[in-house]
Amino acid sequence: MRVELLSVGTELLLGEIVDTNAAYLAEKLSELGISVYHKTTVGDNAERLVAALQISLARADVVLVTGGLGPTEDDVTAAAIAQVAGVDLVEDEATAERIRSLARTHGLRLLDKLLKQARVPHGGQVIPNPVGTAPGIILPCDSKTVIALPGVPAEMRAMAEQTALPYLARRAAPEGAAVIVSRVLRLAGIGESGAEAEIGDLIRAQTNPTIAPLAKLQEIHLRITARAADRGAAEEVIAPLETEIRRRLGDHVYGADGESLETVVGRMLREAGQTVAVAESCTGGLIGHRLTNVPGSSDYFLGSVVTYSNQAKVAVLKVPEETIQQHGAVSAEVARAMAEGVKEVCGAHLGLSVTGIAGPTGATATKPVGLTYVALSGAGGTVAEEHRLRGDRAMVKERAAQAALYLLYRTLTARAPAEVAR
Amino acid sequence: MRVELLSVGTELLLGEIVDTNAAYLAEKLSELGISVYHKTTVGDNAERLVAALQISLARADVVLVTGGLGPTEDDVTAAAIAQVAGVDLVEDEATAERIRSLARTHGLRLLDKLLKQARVPHGGQVIPNPVGTAPGIILPCDSKTVIALPGVPAEMRAMAEQTALPYLARRAAPEGAAVIVSRVLRLAGIGESGAEAEIGDLIRAQTNPTIAPLAKLQEIHLRITARAADRGAAEEVIAPLETEIRRRLGDHVYGADGESLETVVGRMLREAGQTVAVAESCTGGLIGHRLTNVPGSSDYFLGSVVTYSNQAKVAVLKVPEETIQQHGAVSAEVARAMAEGVKEVCGAHLGLSVTGIAGPTGATATKPVGLTYVALSGAGGTVAEEHRLRGDRAMVKERAAQAALYLLYRTLTARAPAEVAR
Repeated sequence: MRVELLSVGTELLLGEIVDTNAAYLAEKLSELGISVYHKTTVGDNAERLVAALQISLARADVVLVTGGLGPTEDDVTAAAIAQVAGVDLVEDEATAERIRSLARTHGLRLLDKLLKQARVPHGGQVIPNPVGTAPGIILPCDSKTVIALPGVPAEMRAMAEQTALPYLARRAAPEGAAVIVSRVLRLAGIGESGAEAEIGDLIRAQTNPTIAPLAKLQEIHLRITARAADRGAAEEVIAPLETEIRRRLGDHVYGADGESLETVVGRMLREAGQTVAVAESCTGGLIGHRLTNVPGSSDYFLGSVVTYSNQAKVAVLKVPEETIQQHGAVSAEVARAMAEGVKEVCGAHLGLSVTGIAGPTGATATKPVGLTYVALSGAGGTVAEEHRLRGDRAMVKERAAQAALYLLYRTLTARAPAEVAR
Repeated sequence: MRVELLSVGTELLLGEIVDTNAAYLAEKLSELGISVYHKTTVGDNAERLVAALQISLARADVVLVTGGLGPTEDDVTAAAIAQVAGVDLVEDEATAERIRSLARTHGLRLLDKLLKQARVPHGGQVIPNPVGTAPGIILPCDSKTVIALPGVPAEMRAMAEQTALPYLARRAAPEGAAVIVSRVLRLAGIGESGAEAEIGDLIRAQTNPTIAPLAKLQEIHLRITARAADRGAAEEVIAPLETEIRRRLGDHVYGADGESLETVVGRMLREAGQTVAVAESCTGGLIGHRLTNVPGSSDYFLGSVVTYSNQAKVAVLKVPEETIQQHGAVSAEVARAMAEGVKEVCGAHLGLSVTGIAGPTGATATKPVGLTYVALSGAGGTVAEEHRLRGDRAMVKERAAQAALYLLYRTLTARAPAEVAR
């Protein structure tokens, strides 16, 4: 089965917004093992939308349209789909009643305009919108199918997950395999080739489930995808393979699915009743920014000290001046003193630190751009690690923050690394 | 003149990456007043690419292709364009020589594969690649034109700015107006409706240049676009309007074109020989992260202290405990004490602070989510401002950081606001 994506919206053609809907749907369809060969974007123009629908229907089995289902004059998707399918627009009673009810409760103005959204192509299956007023539609069109969803990302995603994607998964699944389920393992502290060296035989041997590695900026994702008769059966297929991958990769698997490293670390800190304070140099505040992106992080994150200058390292973190003079600000010794200092000054259980050279300036003959030290101080003492990170200034900052959070993660699993010799 | 965008790359159809190239080109073409009616994405497949090119050439005057110009087997764009235009691929001597020269200097392996990139459709104009090895091409195709650029964003942007966009601007310009020049004024501390209230008459009255406001997450951009015989003439058309806008909006215009607020503030600090230290609460480190995204920021940024806990505010920043007890951690008084404390402890000329409630938790009966105080302490004393910011946790963090940096900006222009009474 081939699916095409058709995004509708003049704002997408002006470059004012990036089409994240199409990327989201492409990724979800790929997870389901469904091939997408074309993505097209057209503006809010009935004639061009009809022509684009005809081109897409000639190439694909299913055309998945997003956008143009709103209440205004320039929302033309429902009418265009009806024209291509050769059917009329008819009022869907349930949708109209829901809009009237919302209007009564919330005093919505412009009821007539909103009711336009209840007019859907005859013969279509209505997809309820749990978030907004515009319904989606699944419409047969000769031997093909058109699915239309609203362009507002929150509405589109909710309706895709609840209705459109399960519908497509059922249609795409081979005989006897009614569902496709996937699970993403998130890896830190290891590269794509390192992961493949450990589990390459598993990747090559598997057909159901399959394993697909994907390199992100600062971590690797492993997607395990299974086809089975139902969700429970799919999960039973995934479980032994996940266990084997975790056994081989150990602490490199820090989490699964939508969990970021800061989310996982935050949960572990809360469960352990531990608090953390951070001393940052080259990351400039990024570690604190990431930790505080998690709601409720004030329960375990006490603070961060960004010491860009040596003076601040000495004055705020009590790093001995002679340590800086003897080893340089970018050194394991200073990283260690920073971690101990911030733990002390903030009164935290754990002190985490990073010092490095983000570039493009600041390198010396012996210390290249990307050289970074992370350290962690806790009840059991202080450990430091050396990293040589690649990339431009922004990438070194991202990777240094990840290295520091990964050290914190390993400490919290009570399997912190041995101290790294310089 | 109509331009279509055609993005080539299977990874775009898998949703692994978002197509920022298409959004970038769409925005640039929109700035040039060039209409884009369709965007299409196809995978690395010769047959489907040829078919997509034919569809696009039937609809548009110019098809702008990105991607598929690399050295591997699945890079099929040059061959597909040649096939559609009915011409052969021929070796471009200058490109081949450049690749050989790079191979000699850098010891590149796989010279044969790289030399494939020198084979371009006969009759085309080669666009040099200042960043990588794949050249671009401008090829006449009957009465239409195909332009191809590499898919690597840095290469695509450099070549678009140097060659493809100027070429399109010349073709699109009306008689007597050979160039289109635009300038973006960047505004802070004012919303879109506030800006329109000040300059709405200018927006409505102008035809050349035109003024278009665009609301970003945390600031407003005003784009002034002029058409004229040459760049100098266009700039002469823009200058008096820019002067009038700056006169009316005053300090709200903090910069122009690609300059971020942290870049402008950094330059002002360097020129004034001043240093700054930052005390952050709800922003969690974001202000330090933004300031340190600017290369060379260690010259003026001494450090940042992120005090999420009250204890850290007292211990590190010397905020008096009774101030927190009396007014609460989110108050003008605490913001002021934090700014003074961080200035003192880091030995900086200026201390900048923010304290607020990012949500979703932490609000009280009198202090809602989004309530934020920013303060700045310098030689002339300390000022504090109250803000009520809208949005979710991430948006409140972004807007609070912007409010703090904008206060720093106004202080550096020596036109700091009067202290805001609570």
